[in-house]
Amino acid sequence: MAFARNGWYCAAFSTEVDTNFLGRKILGEGVLITRDSAGGVRAIGDRCPHRFAPLHRGVREADTVECPYHGLRFDLDGRCVLNPHGQGRIPGAARVAAYPVEERQGVIWLWPGDPALADPAIIPDLLLVDRGERTPVNGHLTMPVDYRLVLDNLMDLSHAAYLHAGTLSPSRAKRESTYDDDETSVRVNTVMRDVPTPSSQQLYFPSPRGDYHSDIEWIFPGSLRQRLAMTETGAEADAGAVTRNVHLITPETETSTHYFWIHSRNRLMDDVSIDDRTRAILSNAFLTEDEPMMQACQENMGGAEFFSLRPIYLETDFAGTRCRRTMERIIAEEAETARRPAAPAEASSAQTTPA
Amino acid sequence: MAFARNGWYCAAFSTEVDTNFLGRKILGEGVLITRDSAGGVRAIGDRCPHRFAPLHRGVREADTVECPYHGLRFDLDGRCVLNPHGQGRIPGAARVAAYPVEERQGVIWLWPGDPALADPAIIPDLLLVDRGERTPVNGHLTMPVDYRLVLDNLMDLSHAAYLHAGTLSPSRAKRESTYDDDETSVRVNTVMRDVPTPSSQQLYFPSPRGDYHSDIEWIFPGSLRQRLAMTETGAEADAGAVTRNVHLITPETETSTHYFWIHSRNRLMDDVSIDDRTRAILSNAFLTEDEPMMQACQENMGGAEFFSLRPIYLETDFAGTRCRRTMERIIAEEAETARRPAAPAEASSAQTTPA
Amino acid sequence: MAFARNGWYCAAFSTEVDTNFLGRKILGEGVLITRDSAGGVRAIGDRCPHRFAPLHRGVREADTVECPYHGLRFDLDGRCVLNPHGQGRIPGAARVAAYPVEERQGVIWLWPGDPALADPAIIPDLLLVDRGERTPVNGHLTMPVDYRLVLDNLMDLSHAAYLHAGTLSPSRAKRESTYDDDETSVRVNTVMRDVPTPSSQQLYFPSPRGDYHSDIEWIFPGSLRQRLAMTETGAEADAGAVTRNVHLITPETETSTHYFWIHSRNRLMDDVSIDDRTRAILSNAFLTEDEPMMQACQENMGGAEFFSLRPIYLETDFAGTRCRRTMERIIAEEAETARRPAAPAEASSAQTTPA
Repeated sequence: MAFARNGWYCAAFSTEVDTNFLGRKILGEGVLITRDSAGGVRAIGDRCPHRFAPLHRGVREADTVECPYHGLRFDLDGRCVLNPHGQGRIPGAARVAAYPVEERQGVIWLWPGDPALADPAIIPDLLLVDRGERTPVNGHLTMPVDYRLVLDNLMDLSHAAYLHAGTLSPSRAKRESTYDDDETSVRVNTVMRDVPTPSSQQLYFPSPRGDYHSDIEWIFPGSLRQRLAMTETGAEADAGAVTRNVHLITPETETSTHYFWIHSRNRLMDDVSIDDRTRAILSNAFLTEDEPMMQACQENMGGAEFFSLRPIYLETDFAGTRCRRTMERIIAEEAETARRPAAPAEASSAQTTPA
Repeated sequence: MAFARNGWYCAAFSTEVDTNFLGRKILGEGVLITRDSAGGVRAIGDRCPHRFAPLHRGVREADTVECPYHGLRFDLDGRCVLNPHGQGRIPGAARVAAYPVEERQGVIWLWPGDPALADPAIIPDLLLVDRGERTPVNGHLTMPVDYRLVLDNLMDLSHAAYLHAGTLSPSRAKRESTYDDDETSVRVNTVMRDVPTPSSQQLYFPSPRGDYHSDIEWIFPGSLRQRLAMTETGAEADAGAVTRNVHLITPETETSTHYFWIHSRNRLMDDVSIDDRTRAILSNAFLTEDEPMMQACQENMGGAEFFSLRPIYLETDFAGTRCRRTMERIIAEEAETARRPAAPAEASSAQTTPA
Repeated sequence: MAFARNGWYCAAFSTEVDTNFLGRKILGEGVLITRDSAGGVRAIGDRCPHRFAPLHRGVREADTVECPYHGLRFDLDGRCVLNPHGQGRIPGAARVAAYPVEERQGVIWLWPGDPALADPAIIPDLLLVDRGERTPVNGHLTMPVDYRLVLDNLMDLSHAAYLHAGTLSPSRAKRESTYDDDETSVRVNTVMRDVPTPSSQQLYFPSPRGDYHSDIEWIFPGSLRQRLAMTETGAEADAGAVTRNVHLITPETETSTHYFWIHSRNRLMDDVSIDDRTRAILSNAFLTEDEPMMQACQENMGGAEFFSLRPIYLETDFAGTRCRRTMERIIAEEAETARRPAAPAEASSAQTTPA
């Protein structure tokens, strides 16, 4: 299995979800996401247990979903509450998964694993620059690549000087990086000292030279917090022109990945034209540079497991490699747990878990 | 193996076949269908035994097929009768299957299994309303789904009230159904008593209310006879406005299905505009409602065997489940027969059978 | 494995390769082909050993290739010569294959196997009619079929009378063929005596009748030399109007094939309009007749190994069958060699071989 299930994944932006049904594949499973009549976000399995129809194509009846094929109705806890046929008997197994979900900072977080373990306290703060009620600058792409290639890509930003030379106009100046990790996160902090201000920063930062800071942190399973800052030479990063970006990476299938990103900045915050420009620049770089490169790498891997191909290891690979090894360890631990017989107390809820 | 071979399958409508070559895939095998100079329908294997070229792309020379690649000629019993090269020697194995075929009621029936078992007496009467020489109302679709999903769909017509709400305007009134089956057939008879006349029946049946009868019968391997009737409350079904439809389901491959349908009715039989309207309504419902739903279900099954996914069982699933179990039993029996060594008398013809 | 590696394959025409990077898949592997600053052709593995990016999408820096993803640089012997990041350490395994290549008669030959065995002396002379500096008449197609179907096609030219009846206007007259083979080549010489001049030859050969010679020779692994000649009845083939064609067949993947062809002739050599006409006629026949037929045959084989389907054997199959058996023998010998432990002296170069 390529996925870790016991973790919070971004399933959607808040703005995508209303009382209609959003059907989205997450970790290989169909999920129906909607809001209940009280406005709370709810997520249940999107596959009817009767003939496997996609429930999100059905119609809403109060806070229930009517299956579009034969009309079984499910509540937003995943229980079948109506069989409109014959004597109307509802089999005990007529239910779909109910996923723990939390809505924070404009993001809908979903826990695909054991609901008993879903602790909202470990949902990471996105560390965005707050700009109140204004519309966030964000985007959602679905990339046809293994999510681990996306983690690799983000955890080694040295690629920017080569892959994004045409769009983000990064500097090829000397990068000084420090690495740091713990059980469920990895950090890379990089500084390029006394360099010409990259054209992408000139709007926010008027001096012709300064220090360029590029930091990124991965938090298990798929949250990345990035800070890019241009400062006067020698100053602290947060003292300068700062953009804080978040990249939320959620496997769609074993070979495709949801890529949600959010941008914020501490300069020219009210200028909507910069929002539009940023959206265009980032979408373009992700879609026309990152995605085709990752897709080509995946194709060149010919379906083989990454480490089986013995990739050469550079010091810049520390962070990406730590991500991969951490994912591997947690996936193995989950598999080990799944092999153990469930304790009696847990058995009763087994039916509703998506595992 | 997903197919039962010893049975009569619809291969084509009579109107599709002339002295040209029709190439069609049936139960995963290419079949060439044509008429001989006497007008009789003939069907042979469509794969040249030399270099596996599709014979139906070849040209006709009298009652032979010339292979389009190297010019070997085959008669309509599947025997190679000419090798135009070198000394012209024809190897004994130079033959393709000859399939038993029968033409009845505008349908060409083909037997993909052991020719010795092909008994035309078991071809079902379609029970259509006869309207003489007039063109039948029919259609042929190829659906990208396992044929068993199509049988499921047809044997549980309770789906109409949900899936076809927008096209066939069915009633959601209470359905009373009785079920009945034997070794090779399954029947469901349903009546909705004293209901408003559905808009689809108003053309044929002027009263505002009555009983609506909806009966369907599956006959192994792929013939379904359906009767829809609107009657005065309490009357016999055949006393009312009756449409008799046939659905002939033939696997094309393990994941695609030929769907042949024929419509007949006992009212307004001469009105050709109703023919056109019926053709449009049915094609539309099959193509835009049934097919996408079955395709979505198949995709949601992820390649797994149906029962391995433990679908919940409703009483309305009796008929569909009986079809599946009957197919399973017969497929297992055929596999068992195939494992037994052939008796000497049968061995000589083994080469020409498609098995 | 479907490929023999120790042999010379056509990788490109000379005219396709300059100091840009040509990326081409050969025997399932990506190859980057270019010219060094001295004009010599060079070929290295196209997959960066770091994150498997396609090197041919990178930029050239002097005689090095800069990886488009993270900027590692490789020389044209496949060695990594620059790591622009961190301390710049270059791991010993940071190299890609360097393929032996030779450029002759407008063709770039590549040896995908053990470089120590690459002997340029065995590259076949193409036996084209020399016409000096004039542009050759040639073409390159990539066909979605197993290369062995292409060898079959070419080694049994009796197909022309049927498959190319509409384009090459061949005769269906009696063919007299002789066959001949040795360890690594197979020949078929055919003559049709005292036949009407085919329309395709009338331009070069004014007499209404004569002998038509059609000879073809396969040289392991993928070179075919063909002579088509129209002569006065009873004359030697080379005394007449002769076209000499070469077909160079290089597997791209297990199910696709590079088809390079070159045409030359001994009449009307200076008439460029005939060049254009020939290019059009041959491309059309290969693309609209050969390719669809081979593709249909491949599809009809359903992924099975050719001989497992027990194709019937005609005397015209001698040459194609000898090609297949020779390829099988050599592939088995290579597999046997690969299973033996390498001698100490060979071990040091193992890392750079593409095997």
